[in-house]
Amino acid sequence: MNRLLKSPLSGIIPPLVTPLLDDDTLDVRGLECLIERLIDGGVNALFILGTTGEAQCLSYKLRAEMIRETCRITADRLPVLVCISDTSIVESVRLAQVAANYGAEAVVSAPPYYFASAQPELVEFYDKLIKDLPLPLFLYNMPTHTKVNFAPQTIYRIAENPKVIGFKDSSANLVYFQSVMHIMKDHPNFSMLVGPEEVTGEVVLMGGNGGINGGANMFPKLYVALYNAAKEHNFEELYRLQKIVMQISTTVYTIGKYGSSYLKSLKCALSLLGVCSDFVAAPFNHFEKEERDQVRIALENLNMDLDLKS
Amino acid sequence: MNRLLKSPLSGIIPPLVTPLLDDDTLDVRGLECLIERLIDGGVNALFILGTTGEAQCLSYKLRAEMIRETCRITADRLPVLVCISDTSIVESVRLAQVAANYGAEAVVSAPPYYFASAQPELVEFYDKLIKDLPLPLFLYNMPTHTKVNFAPQTIYRIAENPKVIGFKDSSANLVYFQSVMHIMKDHPNFSMLVGPEEVTGEVVLMGGNGGINGGANMFPKLYVALYNAAKEHNFEELYRLQKIVMQISTTVYTIGKYGSSYLKSLKCALSLLGVCSDFVAAPFNHFEKEERDQVRIALENLNMDLDLKS
Amino acid sequence: MNRLLKSPLSGIIPPLVTPLLDDDTLDVRGLECLIERLIDGGVNALFILGTTGEAQCLSYKLRAEMIRETCRITADRLPVLVCISDTSIVESVRLAQVAANYGAEAVVSAPPYYFASAQPELVEFYDKLIKDLPLPLFLYNMPTHTKVNFAPQTIYRIAENPKVIGFKDSSANLVYFQSVMHIMKDHPNFSMLVGPEEVTGEVVLMGGNGGINGGANMFPKLYVALYNAAKEHNFEELYRLQKIVMQISTTVYTIGKYGSSYLKSLKCALSLLGVCSDFVAAPFNHFEKEERDQVRIALENLNMDLDLKS
Amino acid sequence: MNRLLKSPLSGIIPPLVTPLLDDDTLDVRGLECLIERLIDGGVNALFILGTTGEAQCLSYKLRAEMIRETCRITADRLPVLVCISDTSIVESVRLAQVAANYGAEAVVSAPPYYFASAQPELVEFYDKLIKDLPLPLFLYNMPTHTKVNFAPQTIYRIAENPKVIGFKDSSANLVYFQSVMHIMKDHPNFSMLVGPEEVTGEVVLMGGNGGINGGANMFPKLYVALYNAAKEHNFEELYRLQKIVMQISTTVYTIGKYGSSYLKSLKCALSLLGVCSDFVAAPFNHFEKEERDQVRIALENLNMDLDLKS
Repeated sequence: MNRLLKSPLSGIIPPLVTPLLDDDTLDVRGLECLIERLIDGGVNALFILGTTGEAQCLSYKLRAEMIRETCRITADRLPVLVCISDTSIVESVRLAQVAANYGAEAVVSAPPYYFASAQPELVEFYDKLIKDLPLPLFLYNMPTHTKVNFAPQTIYRIAENPKVIGFKDSSANLVYFQSVMHIMKDHPNFSMLVGPEEVTGEVVLMGGNGGINGGANMFPKLYVALYNAAKEHNFEELYRLQKIVMQISTTVYTIGKYGSSYLKSLKCALSLLGVCSDFVAAPFNHFEKEERDQVRIALENLNMDLDLKS
Repeated sequence: MNRLLKSPLSGIIPPLVTPLLDDDTLDVRGLECLIERLIDGGVNALFILGTTGEAQCLSYKLRAEMIRETCRITADRLPVLVCISDTSIVESVRLAQVAANYGAEAVVSAPPYYFASAQPELVEFYDKLIKDLPLPLFLYNMPTHTKVNFAPQTIYRIAENPKVIGFKDSSANLVYFQSVMHIMKDHPNFSMLVGPEEVTGEVVLMGGNGGINGGANMFPKLYVALYNAAKEHNFEELYRLQKIVMQISTTVYTIGKYGSSYLKSLKCALSLLGVCSDFVAAPFNHFEKEERDQVRIALENLNMDLDLKS
Repeated sequence: MNRLLKSPLSGIIPPLVTPLLDDDTLDVRGLECLIERLIDGGVNALFILGTTGEAQCLSYKLRAEMIRETCRITADRLPVLVCISDTSIVESVRLAQVAANYGAEAVVSAPPYYFASAQPELVEFYDKLIKDLPLPLFLYNMPTHTKVNFAPQTIYRIAENPKVIGFKDSSANLVYFQSVMHIMKDHPNFSMLVGPEEVTGEVVLMGGNGGINGGANMFPKLYVALYNAAKEHNFEELYRLQKIVMQISTTVYTIGKYGSSYLKSLKCALSLLGVCSDFVAAPFNHFEKEERDQVRIALENLNMDLDLKS
Repeated sequence: MNRLLKSPLSGIIPPLVTPLLDDDTLDVRGLECLIERLIDGGVNALFILGTTGEAQCLSYKLRAEMIRETCRITADRLPVLVCISDTSIVESVRLAQVAANYGAEAVVSAPPYYFASAQPELVEFYDKLIKDLPLPLFLYNMPTHTKVNFAPQTIYRIAENPKVIGFKDSSANLVYFQSVMHIMKDHPNFSMLVGPEEVTGEVVLMGGNGGINGGANMFPKLYVALYNAAKEHNFEELYRLQKIVMQISTTVYTIGKYGSSYLKSLKCALSLLGVCSDFVAAPFNHFEKEERDQVRIALENLNMDLDLKS
């Protein structure tokens, strides 16, 4: 196991959208196209069934299918990380077993998100969960959706178990991220990854390991180049690429009205780029023509070096 | 169908705890004992797999079992309402079908709780969901857990569909409850129910239909008597019973430290009363001896008229 | 002192708007007109410089003027309560001295609202404040604005000082209100008042003392009649009046777009009723013609018994 | 005017604590000592009466005194920035006039913090405020305390007025900070400053102008050195200093229990370092012996290069 996982896991790890034909049907051809594009783009691992992957909106049957197909298509060319976040520990363990069976390398888990847990309850929960996991685990902080932040001490405590090999933070709070980096400073193999692509550059400059960035679904080469520029302290290149990343963030992702804009825009853009279907699972819905046209214009305005586009 | 459901559904409808032997095993004997106690206590319907029922913490297999066993034990003596709240519309519909197959009378749904939806997204989601439901629906407002409030206009709009027959509000915000009552004032058969037992009295006085009160698991007769006193404008009795309800609220439910106190206390009390196991599903855990002793003392201090105890 | 204050203070106590000609000029004639209307309407006391009074938006000079003019116009016909909420304890004490000098009967204080305080800090703060107050004190819970709820135990503890004579709750959370009522049940002279007029009826039915209701600025007789109907358990009348109160709440107060709608609508309505200027202090602004017309129509649609209108 | 203010203002600008002898008496000698220490430490400007300066907890008389004394002691050796945040526009303008009279270089303003404003209301408020300001303005984002975030577009719009020369963000949300940097990218003289010292390094690496860092009250040379290391891309030095900054953040600032820990710890540390009194204004209070001892130990454990200590 873990033949493919370097330690610590570093670089750009796209959180894959789940291409769908309808609420319960996977767009397998779209998924194939997406994965080939990502591998071709130089990403370091694949992360499936996270927030960007709409996992919570999908049936268990479909989640299992997504795991199976991703592993089949990837065929050990890259490590596959499977998010098993759930409100039921029983279903989380079951998903982890499915992941192990199909050959994924690790699982990822955010705290149960219906009831909010206190920190000692999180410790107890993860001790219990980890015991039954067949794969190494990344912790995933997503407080807007789970209603709880992992306290840095909680992460430190849970990570005493060597099966816990990394952390993804989507809080956007970099004071918090620095605190976790600081408390884990004597664990150099513990992978520190950040969700929002707008701050991947600075996280890497400060010693973090990389980004699980949604935009890499669209433009893997852009985010890989940004990561490399930060890693190599090439500031001129970093500032140039950061400007494009911010343009995507402030144009493509802000189309549409609600909190779900990011998801709808991302799938719409992937559809416009010819990668996969733009179907978004309930409770959301894909963009109508007006917003689709806005996404098209936003993409055209990126004026990116063509080389970064795929 | 709906032979048992009066319109509007009124009175005390306990949100049953799910008696458990471990994370994935139902305490069937405990459930039998609980249901007999509730029916004997004069409640008007049974509500299962809600927040108090820890539904989100249970596997789908166990949820189906809970539906089957509840319907078997109840045997049409009372209407059974099944909460199908989920983050996946596909799984929600599946649970509703299970509920219909086993003979439940209605389903209940809170908004998907991973992503927060905007109001137009809620309307669209429920239009889609209702189309596939084999049973009538109650909407369920639980903003602390779902991160969204149904706007009164949203309820009004969704309830244009005659399959939507009632509303349960657990927000504790009675200004909001009054606003929903006001907008639904021309739908006298639409059932207006409140979650927190501390305000069932005043809700009924103001014309609401009843309470889905967790405490009724322990003391069904107490809450039924409170409901009746409010319904009959018997203020002396109402004040006397309200005092007991508030004593439970401020003693039994406040033992332990975290947001999960209520759940742990309730199951601990049921165990002390000889009703069912006190096992609480992950991410939580049952009370240890110290807190169990505090619950015992709190129960003893209730000094209730013995007749209300069962 | 306190010749005018009955114990416990009960009934309808309007939280007066502060009539303004500009950001730093009191509309004295408007204030005279407003106070006469309220006294004529049968209210039980006047509450000035609260949230509805925009106190925080006013200079200290203007706040002192408002106290002076209100006491002068009221001329001991009713008790005057002055809200002294501030972020600086020094300025709070100074305002209380101004209030005492001009003949007000009591002061009211919400927690400091820049930094959020913990419960032990609230206890310490109020112990310190009360020591320097020349008048009895009402505590004021306004969590949306102060970022903290008084825990019921905190209120109980602060109210051990006999200078603390009552509590106003604007949280809209009636479970919380019931908890405070319960913990204070052996202090029958401690006044339990509620802010939102939508729940004054039920609060009074359950044994609360009355309402500090903004709508009473417009229609004092309506809210006094509602209070009386609840007090006398006259349900037919209560339901009839509650319907009007809810119509005001869901029409007049919802005009305009932001959180400040209530304030702008209320002042606009008072201007349309010929009571006082509609000027709203920065950071807000009065309604423009379009919204003013909507308020006019909403008022006309109330179809109230003319007798309640003044 | 503005002879001292470079454009854009850059570097380390400590948000001075307000040394106090009691709730309404300035510790003038402490202030002298503090200012000399800061100037000696190489900071680029002084920022007074911000959140760290407890401005909201102070009387207006004391705030004016703090402005006067700071300007007198500084004697034009550094630019002085005065925070005029208030809930009353009238008092804000008055404070700005006091600042101008005593020779301050600029003022700083966070949105009014009692009522939360909507974005168009913020624009209108600042247009009105700026008109009456005798000094240039920095906008100050402090959402935990003001309940509102400046939308990037709002900042852009307000900054069309050339009197608006910079922005301080204390949100800790660096995705947000990047968005503001991006929208202001064509205003190279607009100063982009960050509050939390834990992220000053990365903000400067990414092109931001500096930090308004509370810790610089204690150790000005440390933060100036961190700024310089980031500015010069000296990563080895930056990582070494960042580790000390994080040690301060996770030890000194976390002593004590409540949200006010930071303030109490900071003043306690300054007292232990012999700079000024540890008195904290109501609603808070200075540390008792036990916590004071913890702060002493935390300071000793810093093991800093002595040169950075003053």
